[in-house]
Amino acid sequence: MTAINDLEVGFDVPAVPGMDEADIQTPCLVVDLDALERNIIKMGKIAKDMGVRHRVHGKMHKSVDIALLQEKLGDSCGVCCQKVSEAEVFARGGIKDVLVSNQVRDPKKIERLAKMPKLGARVIVCVDDIDNVADLSAAAVKEGTQLECLVEIDCGAGRCGVQAGQPVVDIAKAIEAAENLKYAGIQAYQGAMQHMEHFADRKEKTAIAIEMVASTIEMLKAEGIESDIVGGGGTGSYYFEGASNVFNELQCGSYAFMDADYQTIRDESGEKITDFENSLFILTSVMSHTKADKAIVDAGLKAQSVDSGLPYVFGRDDVEYIKCSDEHGIVADANGVLKINEKLKLVPGHCDPTCNVHDYYVGVRNGKVETLWPVSARGKAY
Amino acid sequence: MTAINDLEVGFDVPAVPGMDEADIQTPCLVVDLDALERNIIKMGKIAKDMGVRHRVHGKMHKSVDIALLQEKLGDSCGVCCQKVSEAEVFARGGIKDVLVSNQVRDPKKIERLAKMPKLGARVIVCVDDIDNVADLSAAAVKEGTQLECLVEIDCGAGRCGVQAGQPVVDIAKAIEAAENLKYAGIQAYQGAMQHMEHFADRKEKTAIAIEMVASTIEMLKAEGIESDIVGGGGTGSYYFEGASNVFNELQCGSYAFMDADYQTIRDESGEKITDFENSLFILTSVMSHTKADKAIVDAGLKAQSVDSGLPYVFGRDDVEYIKCSDEHGIVADANGVLKINEKLKLVPGHCDPTCNVHDYYVGVRNGKVETLWPVSARGKAY
Repeated sequence: MTAINDLEVGFDVPAVPGMDEADIQTPCLVVDLDALERNIIKMGKIAKDMGVRHRVHGKMHKSVDIALLQEKLGDSCGVCCQKVSEAEVFARGGIKDVLVSNQVRDPKKIERLAKMPKLGARVIVCVDDIDNVADLSAAAVKEGTQLECLVEIDCGAGRCGVQAGQPVVDIAKAIEAAENLKYAGIQAYQGAMQHMEHFADRKEKTAIAIEMVASTIEMLKAEGIESDIVGGGGTGSYYFEGASNVFNELQCGSYAFMDADYQTIRDESGEKITDFENSLFILTSVMSHTKADKAIVDAGLKAQSVDSGLPYVFGRDDVEYIKCSDEHGIVADANGVLKINEKLKLVPGHCDPTCNVHDYYVGVRNGKVETLWPVSARGKAY
Repeated sequence: MTAINDLEVGFDVPAVPGMDEADIQTPCLVVDLDALERNIIKMGKIAKDMGVRHRVHGKMHKSVDIALLQEKLGDSCGVCCQKVSEAEVFARGGIKDVLVSNQVRDPKKIERLAKMPKLGARVIVCVDDIDNVADLSAAAVKEGTQLECLVEIDCGAGRCGVQAGQPVVDIAKAIEAAENLKYAGIQAYQGAMQHMEHFADRKEKTAIAIEMVASTIEMLKAEGIESDIVGGGGTGSYYFEGASNVFNELQCGSYAFMDADYQTIRDESGEKITDFENSLFILTSVMSHTKADKAIVDAGLKAQSVDSGLPYVFGRDDVEYIKCSDEHGIVADANGVLKINEKLKLVPGHCDPTCNVHDYYVGVRNGKVETLWPVSARGKAY
């Protein structure tokens, strides 16, 4: 690791602490630290008021620094993430309670997972196949560690997870019976509903998921099996799971940064949601303006993911980001107001995969660069 | 930099040389070294036979190792890339002729660019605004270096570049008159046409570009200005520019790896093009299969860019990658043939931004991992 003082601005890093915001090298991710802190504090309070824990989703930001801030300011109970290597980054970084909210099947990954409690963290993993139980148990026995397991229910997302009811009970019993494993509860994240525009649609889908989980918990209780964790919920649904009296851990990620896609969803009164602020931006510069009505900026597909649509220009209604190619963005500038080297803040279409292409977050406050946080788990895809 | 022997498989790297292909940790990029070498040799021969140079596009792979292989096996005359920091990686890595085929306007970036010839490389940059000339010149004078400049023509892509004709002549003259700058020729890449399905459409668009460039060269000659480089052409058009007697440098990138998007375009007889082989794959593993007809694999949006469509499964017509979310892919498996931990090779929809999310290429040959190449310029977005 190169010492921070040896880092070259414009090569290794986009900025260094102390620098004026105007001198940041683009394209890069900038974080409005005041807005981020307000979002974290607000969600911490919401979870507390609803009487549930908040296990923040680290796969969104992949940053140890932000996860520690969520612990400090938002009273989060731990982190969830999607990959073993990502979980190792959080455990090595000092997070003491880490859930891999995903299946782990590869023998090498299971081995790494079973070693992880030695880093001093509680390690939890999801299971959706009874065949996985023996492999996890054997690895934990070999390492002399304990792994906790959530049974994952597919409550509508159509990805991993078993059907609610008896399949969950069967796997939970197998976990309870396996050496060095502990049944810790249920994972039930409804990923397919988070971005539905209408509140009533999201509410309906979540109600189905809540009912599935509630009836399964009753079946487990009838067998004498208690669920310590009943986890799920995201930025588009936390108010439903949090108030359900069924879920006891939320798993929100995007709320900390927000993105254009989440800002299209609407609240109960039909208004666009405004519960959290934009704190993440792709900072970009105008690099060419040979057409009177179009400026070319330096943030294209290498600086963001457009899977959920194009970014929008924050705080400007006179210009519009209209097209994205590998290295360029085209910004409509009908009145020709943009100047060469002028900087724009883009709100990404989808924050998670956008963070995944950058190495650093440049934290800004009052016009100055205050922090430079690595995207600690970037590249940890395994 | 961690020494390669200290790298942890499944955390730092997906594989190490000598490992069986079956043990590679997924998701990651694998390169079929035989296919890559055949592509590089073939394109080198094509360019030679057409009597043009080939300046390979390094922004596609961002790899010093592959650029050096293209020099060795494909007789490439140098590299082009899109960012100053990317160019620095190639120059530091031993490439002696580097073109930033893009505009450089930020003062810090211009300063870095002007220092770059001290690394021992010829450094060329594009210009599309006469106001840029004085800034480039002042920086080169300050550093005691020489920068060569191409005037960029917008020949149809609608991004950077001036109109053909007099605007080019005006900027070329300004470059010639500026201290420590040298006019080196014309940049004319028609990026908007490369992926048009029909041969006739691509031919028509390229013919327009070729005519623009030819007439501009005549105007420059009338002023006594010679163009050393007339550069452009990509994997979807090189046969046009190469045979034009106007262009003398091709700038192909994707040909070395290929991707699903380029494989949708057709040749003169209406057949899908087969001039280059697939050498790049996203290796992915089945991690969940709770539905009889759908398998969940571990390559989602964090392992690829889907801006140009989903990947396809290489060499399999019995299964299909049908949906992509942040961390998962859904593979239709109508006959339920896929097993947990079974590996699939995905051909990415678009190679450039897919390479941009990975840290390594795992080079395989005869079932063994032969090389591990860093994506040297990944994250070099500035």
